[in-house]
Amino acid sequence: MKEQKKIAVVGAGLVGTLLAIYLKRAGHTVHVFDRSKDIRTVEFSGRSINLVMSDRGWKALEKLGLDTEIKKIGIPVYKRAIHLEDSSLNFQNYGKEDQAIFSLSRGILNRKMVDLAEAEGVQFFFESKIWDITLSTATLHEGLTERGEWHDLDYDIVFGADGAFSRIRHRMQRQSMFNYSQEFLKLGYKELHIPANPDGSHKIDPNSLHIWPRGEFMLMALANTNGSFTCTLFMPHEGENSFEQLKDKATLEAFFAKYFPDTKEVIPNLVEDFFRNPTSYLVTMKCYPWTYKDKVALIGDACHAIVPFYGHGMNAGFEDITILAEMMEKYGNDWETVFEQYQLSRKPNADAIAELSYRNFMEMSSKTADDKFHLQKKIEKWFSEKHPDKWVPLYSRVTFSHQPYAEALAEGEKQNAIMQEILSIDKIEEIWETEPIEHRILDLLAK
Amino acid sequence: MKEQKKIAVVGAGLVGTLLAIYLKRAGHTVHVFDRSKDIRTVEFSGRSINLVMSDRGWKALEKLGLDTEIKKIGIPVYKRAIHLEDSSLNFQNYGKEDQAIFSLSRGILNRKMVDLAEAEGVQFFFESKIWDITLSTATLHEGLTERGEWHDLDYDIVFGADGAFSRIRHRMQRQSMFNYSQEFLKLGYKELHIPANPDGSHKIDPNSLHIWPRGEFMLMALANTNGSFTCTLFMPHEGENSFEQLKDKATLEAFFAKYFPDTKEVIPNLVEDFFRNPTSYLVTMKCYPWTYKDKVALIGDACHAIVPFYGHGMNAGFEDITILAEMMEKYGNDWETVFEQYQLSRKPNADAIAELSYRNFMEMSSKTADDKFHLQKKIEKWFSEKHPDKWVPLYSRVTFSHQPYAEALAEGEKQNAIMQEILSIDKIEEIWETEPIEHRILDLLAK
Repeated sequence: MKEQKKIAVVGAGLVGTLLAIYLKRAGHTVHVFDRSKDIRTVEFSGRSINLVMSDRGWKALEKLGLDTEIKKIGIPVYKRAIHLEDSSLNFQNYGKEDQAIFSLSRGILNRKMVDLAEAEGVQFFFESKIWDITLSTATLHEGLTERGEWHDLDYDIVFGADGAFSRIRHRMQRQSMFNYSQEFLKLGYKELHIPANPDGSHKIDPNSLHIWPRGEFMLMALANTNGSFTCTLFMPHEGENSFEQLKDKATLEAFFAKYFPDTKEVIPNLVEDFFRNPTSYLVTMKCYPWTYKDKVALIGDACHAIVPFYGHGMNAGFEDITILAEMMEKYGNDWETVFEQYQLSRKPNADAIAELSYRNFMEMSSKTADDKFHLQKKIEKWFSEKHPDKWVPLYSRVTFSHQPYAEALAEGEKQNAIMQEILSIDKIEEIWETEPIEHRILDLLAK
Repeated sequence: MKEQKKIAVVGAGLVGTLLAIYLKRAGHTVHVFDRSKDIRTVEFSGRSINLVMSDRGWKALEKLGLDTEIKKIGIPVYKRAIHLEDSSLNFQNYGKEDQAIFSLSRGILNRKMVDLAEAEGVQFFFESKIWDITLSTATLHEGLTERGEWHDLDYDIVFGADGAFSRIRHRMQRQSMFNYSQEFLKLGYKELHIPANPDGSHKIDPNSLHIWPRGEFMLMALANTNGSFTCTLFMPHEGENSFEQLKDKATLEAFFAKYFPDTKEVIPNLVEDFFRNPTSYLVTMKCYPWTYKDKVALIGDACHAIVPFYGHGMNAGFEDITILAEMMEKYGNDWETVFEQYQLSRKPNADAIAELSYRNFMEMSSKTADDKFHLQKKIEKWFSEKHPDKWVPLYSRVTFSHQPYAEALAEGEKQNAIMQEILSIDKIEEIWETEPIEHRILDLLAK
């Protein structure tokens, strides 16, 4: 028989709340702690990048029947809209005609998730600061300040869903044999804003992810349901064309006029937004192990924080939950095995999506503006339509499938080697849509 | 004019004490804090690997005129003595005939260094626990326990010489843009002991570093001046032939009888030592930046903990001090520039010695027992004697020179590629000492 456990989830973000619902449905008592105010009672912070939900995220919601509810607050995005420096516009489909990722406002989604979890009977404790944990007894240490008085909260099991700077992981990190790395990009980001038209409609196509690729830096925009867009400017902290350089109104306006001329009309509050919103950092964090005996497990960003360029932070976190739930079904009350199998299954895939995400900045910021890259995409699409069983493009494997990330990465590398060979063929831009090329690709695949 | 600063050094280990002497000689007020008891008043811990001092370490001591004093407590080691499984013995010189590294007991050396620093006027505060630091003001936070009352200690400058688990770094780590990694080896180690003969003489050759290479694991012995040897058993924590397997007297004795039969006579207290001494962990720790403005700098293991297989932990830490002292001479009171130039100069070299140390376990545990490797060493020696200007072996570059570690690593890789090509020549074991081979190496070098 299933033992009912008293479980704490630290962190009421997207992964924490969804995990809480899974645990509640499995019959456990579930308390969720978060150091911030209830997100339903506060303004959002101005430091968020819009989320994109894709198949891995949906799968975790579908299992609970929550996908329909969430789709209502999302906008399907079928393609990239590439804004070139001469203000011309290109489009690149993400997958097949009807395949879309969904743009979601982090704040709106998070509020919704808390509502849903509460409706299931999950108990939330907001403004409750967990500073430390005793791993061997799954005891949380909570208090107003880090150096002030703490009191103990005892649980059977604790999940650390408390993000990239997890306090739960912080304690695990101080054990022997705990591997850990944090690496910051030289790149930061800042949130900007395209408001809706007076009639509530979108100023630019809402069903595209808009990119202004400029090599070392780029601007991005994703639609919200209220007609606005959340924009993100990614650029180096220091050096030429960096946040450091954009010190005042004049410099900022000149920079945008030079590199993003077509945004002048759609970002009216550029100066105000730019100097009000913080410049945020981008970090890749890896660690191992993710679990402590049958007592404590890390999940989501707390054990694998990645850079946002593949739009898979939340999707990877939700897939953690899918796999954890599978292990819970398989191994029942044997939580030590549940945790062991969960971390063994997820670790290589978390490493793979970290690598894919890191590489994707290069693709988004530079390659999307490159002719050779466009040709590569066209050849891949053409070949893949002829041989759908033989060629699924990497982006589709990652975004529109449930193939483990590590396998997707490995197959993507093989495909890329093949495409580099094809692209080096003389006059390839003229002859790519021909039988010899098709056969050459088939030969290379068969190797 | 030189401004006199009030400087705290956290950590009274080898690097902390030597740094304190440098700072005192430069005219500053220097306080050294250590959480442990005065090492001069306690027994050593039974978890130490003997140190080997080589040219980089000596250079830092020579500059202060302290090398003669320290040489008295060391034993020169000219070669590796390889104990093969059939109990036969091979020797490999480290460098030229008269080139030696020096075996030193960590405890004895550390006591001596504290004595020397005190004699210079450095003030020591033992059993003084520094839990945290305010970076912007170089204020240390000291107290009896981590959660108890703390009081503040104000300094102009703080050095974190507090080792791989540095509290000073711990605070820096919580800033944005601080890159950090810790990676544990699957291998652990345990200290064992070869006592002196009744007449105080050594049971085996004191001027050799003794290795019993067995592939996945190895035993090592380094001489002490009192006739004893400090031995270190390196082996995996888990799996076949691991610490986990050696649970009781019978298993342990059978294991030693099988793999290290010739140690039976010289390690009489094997069982007692093995089960009394802890099994220790091996970690590589990297981070960046190492400094905070003109206020705080990390040094030694606190910013680059490495595995012990090249015998360069202390040497690299002492070289940090040499470079820091050069920057102090060059940039005077401009501590921000001193720190910036220090970290820029040292970081790539710290990364290089980390890599070299990691690789050297393979060399010590496996390759030293391999015929092809012996042949490679012989060819290198032969060629290097013919062309001393053209070929300095990697080990000599690292150990008997002051060439930056990063350059030594790069040249070592070039040399190794050449040697692999030479070793693949047909019948090389018969023809290596010939003019065609000499010319082939010269050709490859000229490429």
